[in-house]
Amino acid sequence: MAENERLGVAIVGLGGAVATTAVAGLELLRRGRVDTKGLPLAAARGMGLIDYEALTFGGWDLFEDDLAQAARNHAVLTESQLEAVAPVLSQMRPWSAVSNPHFCKNVVGTSSKKTRSLREQVQAIREDLARFRQEQKVHRVVVINLASTERAVDLTQPKFLTPQAFEAALDANDPDIGPAMLYAYAAIADGTPFANFTPSIAADVPALLLLAQRNGSPLAGKDGKTGQTMLKTAIAPVLRDRALHVEGWYSTNILGNRDGEALNDPASKANKIDTKGAALDSILGYKVQDHIVQIQYYRPRGDNKEAWDNIDVVGFLGQPMQLKLNFLCKDSILAAPLVVELARTLDLAKRRGEAGVIDALGCFFKAPMTQDGGKVEHAMAEQQRRLMSWLSLGRVQPTLGKERIRG
Amino acid sequence: MAENERLGVAIVGLGGAVATTAVAGLELLRRGRVDTKGLPLAAARGMGLIDYEALTFGGWDLFEDDLAQAARNHAVLTESQLEAVAPVLSQMRPWSAVSNPHFCKNVVGTSSKKTRSLREQVQAIREDLARFRQEQKVHRVVVINLASTERAVDLTQPKFLTPQAFEAALDANDPDIGPAMLYAYAAIADGTPFANFTPSIAADVPALLLLAQRNGSPLAGKDGKTGQTMLKTAIAPVLRDRALHVEGWYSTNILGNRDGEALNDPASKANKIDTKGAALDSILGYKVQDHIVQIQYYRPRGDNKEAWDNIDVVGFLGQPMQLKLNFLCKDSILAAPLVVELARTLDLAKRRGEAGVIDALGCFFKAPMTQDGGKVEHAMAEQQRRLMSWLSLGRVQPTLGKERIRG
Amino acid sequence: MAENERLGVAIVGLGGAVATTAVAGLELLRRGRVDTKGLPLAAARGMGLIDYEALTFGGWDLFEDDLAQAARNHAVLTESQLEAVAPVLSQMRPWSAVSNPHFCKNVVGTSSKKTRSLREQVQAIREDLARFRQEQKVHRVVVINLASTERAVDLTQPKFLTPQAFEAALDANDPDIGPAMLYAYAAIADGTPFANFTPSIAADVPALLLLAQRNGSPLAGKDGKTGQTMLKTAIAPVLRDRALHVEGWYSTNILGNRDGEALNDPASKANKIDTKGAALDSILGYKVQDHIVQIQYYRPRGDNKEAWDNIDVVGFLGQPMQLKLNFLCKDSILAAPLVVELARTLDLAKRRGEAGVIDALGCFFKAPMTQDGGKVEHAMAEQQRRLMSWLSLGRVQPTLGKERIRG
Amino acid sequence: MAENERLGVAIVGLGGAVATTAVAGLELLRRGRVDTKGLPLAAARGMGLIDYEALTFGGWDLFEDDLAQAARNHAVLTESQLEAVAPVLSQMRPWSAVSNPHFCKNVVGTSSKKTRSLREQVQAIREDLARFRQEQKVHRVVVINLASTERAVDLTQPKFLTPQAFEAALDANDPDIGPAMLYAYAAIADGTPFANFTPSIAADVPALLLLAQRNGSPLAGKDGKTGQTMLKTAIAPVLRDRALHVEGWYSTNILGNRDGEALNDPASKANKIDTKGAALDSILGYKVQDHIVQIQYYRPRGDNKEAWDNIDVVGFLGQPMQLKLNFLCKDSILAAPLVVELARTLDLAKRRGEAGVIDALGCFFKAPMTQDGGKVEHAMAEQQRRLMSWLSLGRVQPTLGKERIRG
Repeated sequence: MAENERLGVAIVGLGGAVATTAVAGLELLRRGRVDTKGLPLAAARGMGLIDYEALTFGGWDLFEDDLAQAARNHAVLTESQLEAVAPVLSQMRPWSAVSNPHFCKNVVGTSSKKTRSLREQVQAIREDLARFRQEQKVHRVVVINLASTERAVDLTQPKFLTPQAFEAALDANDPDIGPAMLYAYAAIADGTPFANFTPSIAADVPALLLLAQRNGSPLAGKDGKTGQTMLKTAIAPVLRDRALHVEGWYSTNILGNRDGEALNDPASKANKIDTKGAALDSILGYKVQDHIVQIQYYRPRGDNKEAWDNIDVVGFLGQPMQLKLNFLCKDSILAAPLVVELARTLDLAKRRGEAGVIDALGCFFKAPMTQDGGKVEHAMAEQQRRLMSWLSLGRVQPTLGKERIRG
Repeated sequence: MAENERLGVAIVGLGGAVATTAVAGLELLRRGRVDTKGLPLAAARGMGLIDYEALTFGGWDLFEDDLAQAARNHAVLTESQLEAVAPVLSQMRPWSAVSNPHFCKNVVGTSSKKTRSLREQVQAIREDLARFRQEQKVHRVVVINLASTERAVDLTQPKFLTPQAFEAALDANDPDIGPAMLYAYAAIADGTPFANFTPSIAADVPALLLLAQRNGSPLAGKDGKTGQTMLKTAIAPVLRDRALHVEGWYSTNILGNRDGEALNDPASKANKIDTKGAALDSILGYKVQDHIVQIQYYRPRGDNKEAWDNIDVVGFLGQPMQLKLNFLCKDSILAAPLVVELARTLDLAKRRGEAGVIDALGCFFKAPMTQDGGKVEHAMAEQQRRLMSWLSLGRVQPTLGKERIRG
Repeated sequence: MAENERLGVAIVGLGGAVATTAVAGLELLRRGRVDTKGLPLAAARGMGLIDYEALTFGGWDLFEDDLAQAARNHAVLTESQLEAVAPVLSQMRPWSAVSNPHFCKNVVGTSSKKTRSLREQVQAIREDLARFRQEQKVHRVVVINLASTERAVDLTQPKFLTPQAFEAALDANDPDIGPAMLYAYAAIADGTPFANFTPSIAADVPALLLLAQRNGSPLAGKDGKTGQTMLKTAIAPVLRDRALHVEGWYSTNILGNRDGEALNDPASKANKIDTKGAALDSILGYKVQDHIVQIQYYRPRGDNKEAWDNIDVVGFLGQPMQLKLNFLCKDSILAAPLVVELARTLDLAKRRGEAGVIDALGCFFKAPMTQDGGKVEHAMAEQQRRLMSWLSLGRVQPTLGKERIRG
Repeated sequence: MAENERLGVAIVGLGGAVATTAVAGLELLRRGRVDTKGLPLAAARGMGLIDYEALTFGGWDLFEDDLAQAARNHAVLTESQLEAVAPVLSQMRPWSAVSNPHFCKNVVGTSSKKTRSLREQVQAIREDLARFRQEQKVHRVVVINLASTERAVDLTQPKFLTPQAFEAALDANDPDIGPAMLYAYAAIADGTPFANFTPSIAADVPALLLLAQRNGSPLAGKDGKTGQTMLKTAIAPVLRDRALHVEGWYSTNILGNRDGEALNDPASKANKIDTKGAALDSILGYKVQDHIVQIQYYRPRGDNKEAWDNIDVVGFLGQPMQLKLNFLCKDSILAAPLVVELARTLDLAKRRGEAGVIDALGCFFKAPMTQDGGKVEHAMAEQQRRLMSWLSLGRVQPTLGKERIRG
């Protein structure tokens, strides 16, 4: 990696717990206050990934708090960690965001763009990115969507099928085009890598997938695989390999952060649970009749999330057994490093000249997208093997990235 | 597989819960009373494995109960399952066993061989196997050790290093040669496949490894990977891949069967716990400072085993999280199918002409042996991949087995 | 107790899991096949309670299966227990029941009374009880409601306030009068003890409470305290006594029996959860802000119920701690003995001449009724102390009961 | 309470986690930084207890760190709590302690009294108390033993039976007299209240019990009931009341503080576990055959303690059920308030003129002592009822305490 390269990471939802944790975490890493624990690809040296130190952050949010204030509210950092980075974070303020209450009811902010048409909103997003490039002197940019879950939309409608149709719908201010799609479109149309870390269907729009291929934008998504699903996809393969039949899997989650609050909107919740459900059946090779996933907003836990799973299996001689998991985790502590690694890997893909969905990044997601829309691999160990194999495909030329510098 | 082939499975500890469950289970399968749930390789058709129906069982035990009575005592089968197979099982009585109270204190049986010298004991074992072959008209035999854990012995002593030295020690009635070694020697010297499903070090004797290579005996071991360790080796890889540092892993087990009772002998227990400990560090790549494994004899649970694990991990920003596992499992229900699959896979190896440790069978063991004594793979998913790859290496000629028929 | 006295227990929902377990259990006790484990008042000898052997059962159900068939379906008894009592239970067939789909949607049976008016239905219930007394030669009868949870009704309406108003509403076939009220009315109008083991509000109707006082009918209710709430009311007092502030209590339940299925009707579920919620705040003396109770229909568990609770408390120095409970229980195994003891204690109350709500029976219920509608005691230990104190108030004269023999 | 009264609390083990938490906690309370959460008797106003603000602390320790340093090491306080009290705590330094490695092997400190004879050690303790009274201007003193668990000694030996015999043994430097007995003797001989918060048998010495009666010293002990046993004695009564037979109760604890380290000495551990065992059988009224208690030193947890319990019960029809508890607690956060309340209640007893064991304080202990050595009440709710009843016996005259001022 050339010494003075810089990668800009533009985050939709910059003031959220995950994003502020990522920003603060890399700042603490830079100062030697924390080590690389929790960063999955810290050990993957010599693979061409840009250094952690070369990342610089910006992004949008509906709340206008500066990042120090936001981090204080989220209460993810320890008191002394917050104190150490507050001077830097207090200088970072999210750009005003695109909002649409029809897509995510329970989160209403105060810092939304005053523009009226969808085209004007797209244009405003582009201007934000251009300004980001210039001010931060970044050579390349990656856009990552961390905004709260939006409601689902039927993507088989003709207006979503081709770039032309989609752009016509944009021009017509079509009410089915939600904010996340606008960010995705703005990035992809420009050849910028885009990752969907939420269950939002923004990047699943067929029109945008085609556009990404055409314009050289690497994509990844969707819905970060952090706590319960990460374990589920590690344990289900063993049950399959030992021929232990899963009769039922009851999963419940309690969490008290803004994500949990958003999920109090049943439409957003349904969307979220859905992406959680598919992985299990896919790994096992049959439909689990009683697979139940509950997510409960529960304030005492704050950003700390707790998952409890009960798994009923039937083994030899038809005899029943039970496995229970109780994961006391921290949502943002698990998610923030994945956001960081997504930025680095998508950037690597871009430099290698790859475009469209990068299949090898499936290990980061609950509902991995695939280039050809084909069968998805959900088993953690196999996903990891594919990621490692993709990474080792060969270094890119350090100069390759340079040619694409903008601003 | 030729239609009328039969494989004899001679088990050390035939009256134990695992063995009686295996015997009863295959009998119930034959009658269509149960399906193949819990049998890991039931779906591996066309790989050259002998059919489940072709297995026939015999073996040794210190207790002389017939298998129906033994199964009744172990209380693993349901009332109606027991009833269905009792007529067949009551006709099966274990052969008298070799015993040595210095090697396993807490289990004292009544049916031990009256022979005095080690050589006579080996000879008696051989005669048992010859009679088994003849009476059951089996084409091939596999010997599997399911006896209770024995105390450890220092295997670096010269007498354990070469076949000649070992045989000299045998002749001298060396007190360091325990019963499990006698069974292993009897099988291996004869080219018969041998698996060590207990933590016994019987097949780790360097002299016997050499002998197995020389005489064409496929080996596998040791210590069946059933409950807690199976999960541990499925979860540890995820923690590694997500760079979650394991600060401590506390594992406790409660079980009430004969195995648990044997473990009340501290020497046997230490041996058992030891094989449980290595897997974790090996997968993670560093030594977990506080890795504690407890096994507690607790009668209310009977053959049902319960494991509770608490895992302390540190993630991004040095922040701690906890994962807890509670596995309510049935020892014999998990173990019996592995014994069955070991018999089938070792038999396949024999027919293919493989000898010595079969590395690909590592997924069945807590402390897998390797052909070259090199680094062991403990991660479940990777082990499974290797097993599947080994199985698909190509069918053996069905006639190959036939040539080796004895009796 | 006079030797040949007999108490008839008429159960609404006789074919359900709880009732069939009670009937089968006392039959097994009579035959010496089980002991009195699980029967809370087995040790309360010399208190004037009628013997277990003197109870005889009858009752109504929407399903016409005989009790042997019903017990087989519920799968609560072991195979051999069922076999032992099947000859007796197969002779017992529930009487056709009163039904009203507007009150309990998800349970629709086939054996409902063909009568059209509410008055005719009450009359039919009375005739059932008269026939029961005569055929079974029972001296006294107790009616216990075990039917599935019904939807709530506003009991502050004038028609529910006085016996006269209630009877006028009956005559007018008022749609707010559900089946459970009809059973309660039929029993209470007659001076027969009545217990409400479900969350049904049948016996909370002010008109019926007045009638019970007037006609000498002892009452008890409501909603049997079996699993999770039993523990909750044992643990909450300790938290209060140690000044550990409860910030949140998340309770989830999975169960797969008919009760669980009924709860898939949201109206029935709301009613159920409500009775679960009050106990905690009452014991602690403040409102727990995040007290969440979930009940989930989950088939793999059958009649076995599982509760998982997570309790967040704050202690000295404002520091947080967590307590988690996991109760793997059997709904009917816990509930059936309470039904039996309710029958015995209500019968004792009747013989003592007590009428209206018997406060001392509060320990059996999630939402205990009180005579004066005043503050309810929910703490288990204190409830138990009151029960024991009430029991020891003095024996009744054995002849007292005799005077009231009917039939 | 007279406004300017002060109570001195002299603690054996002042530098430990529990004591420093108590000292810091009351300092934070005084400053309004924390409220009375976790202090069991905060709500017991008007009962004559001295105010929290009136307590002042001193005491002995084998480690000479000042309390700010000690608190920093124990890591119980949050960063900002520690900061707030550090100026005060850094001025507090424990007095050098009496030590005897034969009584507690794994804890070896650097600040022990240089005196050689037991009599000299007693005299040194007395001088410490006199100096404490004078310097702190306290009207009364209470001594509380929080030192690490010592090994057991046979108290039926004649030398322990009478004050005369005990004093003769003291004169003879009898090796069976451990440090804890010296503190107890010094306090009791002087009429000073003494509480034994550890499993130490110091105050069980018959000679000291007689002396306490004679000299007017109220006593309480032993072994603070904080985490697992507190829950055990809340839950066992319910199981008894519902006639659920306890077949087995498996309890395991992991903790990483100095207490846990001390328990690595098997002799100390046996003593500790023993006091944990008796409560259960006592409440249930029968011996639980498989009651197993394990305590494991496990560093990742620090002062945070975790208990996991599995309870096997048998209910109606002989059917088994399981209850599991998982308590993530903080040892010192639970224990410190009990130490504070013991000081206040023993002081009240002293002012009331009570002497010897105060039975009503049993709720604070795992192994409650009784005045007459008779049957002990272990059930939490009943213990609490007795405490409340004792407290409400009537106020003492505020002047009564004054008369006893010393110094």
